[in-house]
Amino acid sequence: MKLFSSVHDVNDLNQLVSEAIQLKASPFAFENLGKHKTIGLIFLNPSLRTRLSTQKAAMNLGMQVMVMNMDKEGWALETRDGVIMNGTTVEHIREAAGVMGEYCDIIGIRSFPGLKDREEDYSELIFNKFVQFAGCPIVSLESATRHPLQSLADVITIEELKKTTKPKVVLTWAPHVKPLPQAVANSFAEWMNKADYEFVITHPEGYDLAPEFVGNAMVTNNQDEALAGADFVYVKNWSSYNDYGKILTEGEGWMLTNEKLKLTNNAGVMHCLPVRRGLELSHEILDGPNSLVLNQANNRVWAAQAVLKQMLEGK
Amino acid sequence: MKLFSSVHDVNDLNQLVSEAIQLKASPFAFENLGKHKTIGLIFLNPSLRTRLSTQKAAMNLGMQVMVMNMDKEGWALETRDGVIMNGTTVEHIREAAGVMGEYCDIIGIRSFPGLKDREEDYSELIFNKFVQFAGCPIVSLESATRHPLQSLADVITIEELKKTTKPKVVLTWAPHVKPLPQAVANSFAEWMNKADYEFVITHPEGYDLAPEFVGNAMVTNNQDEALAGADFVYVKNWSSYNDYGKILTEGEGWMLTNEKLKLTNNAGVMHCLPVRRGLELSHEILDGPNSLVLNQANNRVWAAQAVLKQMLEGK
Amino acid sequence: MKLFSSVHDVNDLNQLVSEAIQLKASPFAFENLGKHKTIGLIFLNPSLRTRLSTQKAAMNLGMQVMVMNMDKEGWALETRDGVIMNGTTVEHIREAAGVMGEYCDIIGIRSFPGLKDREEDYSELIFNKFVQFAGCPIVSLESATRHPLQSLADVITIEELKKTTKPKVVLTWAPHVKPLPQAVANSFAEWMNKADYEFVITHPEGYDLAPEFVGNAMVTNNQDEALAGADFVYVKNWSSYNDYGKILTEGEGWMLTNEKLKLTNNAGVMHCLPVRRGLELSHEILDGPNSLVLNQANNRVWAAQAVLKQMLEGK
Repeated sequence: MKLFSSVHDVNDLNQLVSEAIQLKASPFAFENLGKHKTIGLIFLNPSLRTRLSTQKAAMNLGMQVMVMNMDKEGWALETRDGVIMNGTTVEHIREAAGVMGEYCDIIGIRSFPGLKDREEDYSELIFNKFVQFAGCPIVSLESATRHPLQSLADVITIEELKKTTKPKVVLTWAPHVKPLPQAVANSFAEWMNKADYEFVITHPEGYDLAPEFVGNAMVTNNQDEALAGADFVYVKNWSSYNDYGKILTEGEGWMLTNEKLKLTNNAGVMHCLPVRRGLELSHEILDGPNSLVLNQANNRVWAAQAVLKQMLEGK
Repeated sequence: MKLFSSVHDVNDLNQLVSEAIQLKASPFAFENLGKHKTIGLIFLNPSLRTRLSTQKAAMNLGMQVMVMNMDKEGWALETRDGVIMNGTTVEHIREAAGVMGEYCDIIGIRSFPGLKDREEDYSELIFNKFVQFAGCPIVSLESATRHPLQSLADVITIEELKKTTKPKVVLTWAPHVKPLPQAVANSFAEWMNKADYEFVITHPEGYDLAPEFVGNAMVTNNQDEALAGADFVYVKNWSSYNDYGKILTEGEGWMLTNEKLKLTNNAGVMHCLPVRRGLELSHEILDGPNSLVLNQANNRVWAAQAVLKQMLEGK
Repeated sequence: MKLFSSVHDVNDLNQLVSEAIQLKASPFAFENLGKHKTIGLIFLNPSLRTRLSTQKAAMNLGMQVMVMNMDKEGWALETRDGVIMNGTTVEHIREAAGVMGEYCDIIGIRSFPGLKDREEDYSELIFNKFVQFAGCPIVSLESATRHPLQSLADVITIEELKKTTKPKVVLTWAPHVKPLPQAVANSFAEWMNKADYEFVITHPEGYDLAPEFVGNAMVTNNQDEALAGADFVYVKNWSSYNDYGKILTEGEGWMLTNEKLKLTNNAGVMHCLPVRRGLELSHEILDGPNSLVLNQANNRVWAAQAVLKQMLEGK
C-alpha cells in the first residue's frame, strides 16, 4: 500500500481487518519490521486519538516517530499554485511536502476542510498536494472529506462485536453548535458500503451526504424508523453538504437517549470522539453499557498498525 | 504503586529515596523493565523540568514516551459532570482520560489550579477525574495542590547532602508579582513531615498553609528566627490559602540574601525553579556556592525514574 | 567537538564533509554510538527542516531525543543579567540552560535575532549564554547571526555535484516583504570562504554583509555580472546590516528567473528554504531541473549526523 486515503485504497478489507485483530493480540509481533524506518506525523489541526494511536502503532512496529504541529511549530503554508507569495504564507506546500518526504519513509498528515468552498474542500487540495510532492507513502490522519483510520477502527469494532453476519448499522446525525466537516460521516458511509452490512443513514432534511459516499445506504429523515432493530448506532454531527458548511437546524430531539435506544436491538453506540456530552450524545448512554466509544478509540491503534504494516511490507 | 499523587502514596520513603540514588549511579540498570510499555505525559500547563526529566526517566527505563500538550495540541476539556456541552469545551475529561488510558500503561498529568475557587482546587477535580477514568497508573506531574515528584527530588537532594541525621530544614515564603499555587509549598511540607527532619515554616501573616500540610512543622512569621542554624533553606512563593489566591504583601525584606544566609548553618539553598531572580531569590545566592537548585533539577530524573520503576514492577 | 556554532569550530572541513557523505551512504553504521545519550533540541522559533533533520540524525545515531518548544511549552526567558525579574519573564536563561544541561549530553538550540539592536544580536547573547551555562556540548540550530548546519549541508551539496575543483559560487540577494536575519547569508559566506571556491556576493546597494563574513568574496551590485559563468547560485534575502534590520528596496528585477539563469554555466540553484515563490525565487526555477533545494534539505540530515557523531566521539 502506498496510499491510505479512503476505503478504495484497500485491496482486501477482510484481510486488513483480520491483520488488525491479530496485531491487537500480538502488538509486538512485527517490532523489527519498522527498524530504521521513519514516520512523520504532520498535524495542521488538533488531534488526540489520531496523534497518540498512530504514534503508538508506529512505535509498536519499531519505527522512529517524528511529530510535527505544522500550524504551530513550522511555517504558514501556501497551497495555491502560481501565486506571488508576498502575503502571510511563508512556505509553499510543494517544498514543505518535498522536504518532509526527504526525511520520512511514511508520512501521515491531518488537514481539516475550510468549510467555505465545497469544491476546494472536496478536491482534497492539501492532502493531494502532499501525496503529489512528498514522494513517499502517505496515510491520511483525516483529510477534508474523509477519516479512513477512524473508519477502519470502526469496522474492526463492529467485526469484533457483531452477533450476525450482516448486522444492521445506522449512522445518525446529531446536534452540534459548530459547523463540523462531513469527513467522519462520509468515510464511515463508504466503509459501511464496502463492508456490506445492512446500512441506514438518518438525518434531518438538508443534511444529505454527497452521493458518492451514500452508496447503497437506505436514507431516511425518520430517526425512529432508522433505529428500529439496529445492532450498531453510529452518532455523529456534520454540517450541510448541499448548503455547504451551514448549520440548518438545532436538531431538537435528535440526540440519542436510552429511551430511543429501546427501539434498537440493544445496539452498541459508536462515536469517533471528541463528543459533546448532553448535546451530541446523552450522558446516560456514554456512561452506560451500550457505549463502544472506548473500544473504537482502542482499535485506532490496531487500525493504524495494520495499515503501517502493509505499507512497510510494500504490499 | 498505582498512584503517585502525594507522599501518602509512598509505602516506604527511605526505600524509594534509596532506589532513586541507586538509579542515579546506574541509570540504565533497568533499561529493559519498560520494554513494550508506553507512558503518556499530558500537559495542561507549561513545563520544562518536569517535561524533560520525566521523559528522560521513562526512556532510561526503556519505555515508549508520548508527550501531549493537551491545552495546545488537543481539545478544550470539560470537567464538570452532567452539563450540556454547548459552549467552548469540546471534549469531556471522562472520554479524554478513558481514551488515553487505552493507549498508555502509565499516564503522567500536569494540571494547575485556577486559584479562584479553593474548594474546587483542593478537591483536585481534574487530577482525580483522570485517576478515576483513565484506568491505568497515574503519576502527578504537579496538580492543583501538590507537586510530589519535585518533593521527592528535594528529599533526595537533602539526603545526599545532609551532614546530620536530623537536619534543620526551613521553608521560607518569598515575594512574587503574580499569585502562585500553594502546590510546591504544600507538597514540600508534607514530605518534610514524613522525612522527620527538624522542619520550620516561615511566612508573613496571612500566608498560613492548609493545616493538613503543615503537620508538625514549627511555624513563625519571624524569618530571622526561622533561619537561625538552618542546614537547608527552601525558598518559594505562594499565594494566600485563607484569602484564597490573593497576594497580601509585596514582601519587602523577605528575599533571601547572603546577609540573611549568615544566620544559617551555611545552609544549602533550594528552589524548585523557575525562579524570578532579584525578586524571589537574590542573584548572589543563585550564582553562589550555597545554591542547590541544579542538584534538585538533576534529581528530578531519579525521582521520576524511581517512581516509574516501582509502577512498572507493580510494587 | 564541544561547540558547533560556526565554521571556525570545524577542525577539518574536508573530513567533516567526507564523514557526512559516508553517513549518507550508511546512515546506521554508527547506530550504537549514541546509545544512552540524550540530545535536547530547544526551539525559541519555528522550524521544519532543522527540527526534523536533526531529530532524524540523532535517532540514526541511536540517541534519545527530547524536543522542546521553549517559546510555547516552557517559560518566558529572561536574558539580561542582574535585573529584578518583576515583569513578564518567568525564568532566567542561566537556570534554563543549566537545568537542560543536567538532562542532556548534547543540546541544540535555535534562537533568532530581534533585528532591533545590532550589537546585541551580533554578540549572540542568547546562544552564548546557553553555551556558558549549559555545561554540555552545544549545536547551533540557527542563532542570531549564523546557521552553520545549513551551511555544512550546502557545502556537502556543492561537493557532491561540482564538476570542477574550484566551482564558481554566487550568493545573490533576493526580494522579500519582511525583514529577515542575515544569518543564512553570513554563514554561507564564511563557509564558502573556508571551502575555497570562487565566491561572489551580489546585492543591491546598502545590503553589504558584515566584513568578517564577506572575507575574500568578490562583491558586486551588478547581479548579471555576478551570475556570469556561475556553477552554483545561492538565492537568499536578508535585511540590511548597516541600516540594521531595514528593508531598503523592493528589489525589482532581483528575483532569479530562467532568463537570468542563461547567464550562468547551467548553474544549480540553491536556497535554504522556506522560500517565498514568485517573490524570492521564480516558480519556474523551483519546479525546474536546476533546483537543488531538496538536495540541500536532504543533506541537512547528514550534516547534523556528522556533527553529532564528532561530538559523541569527543573529537
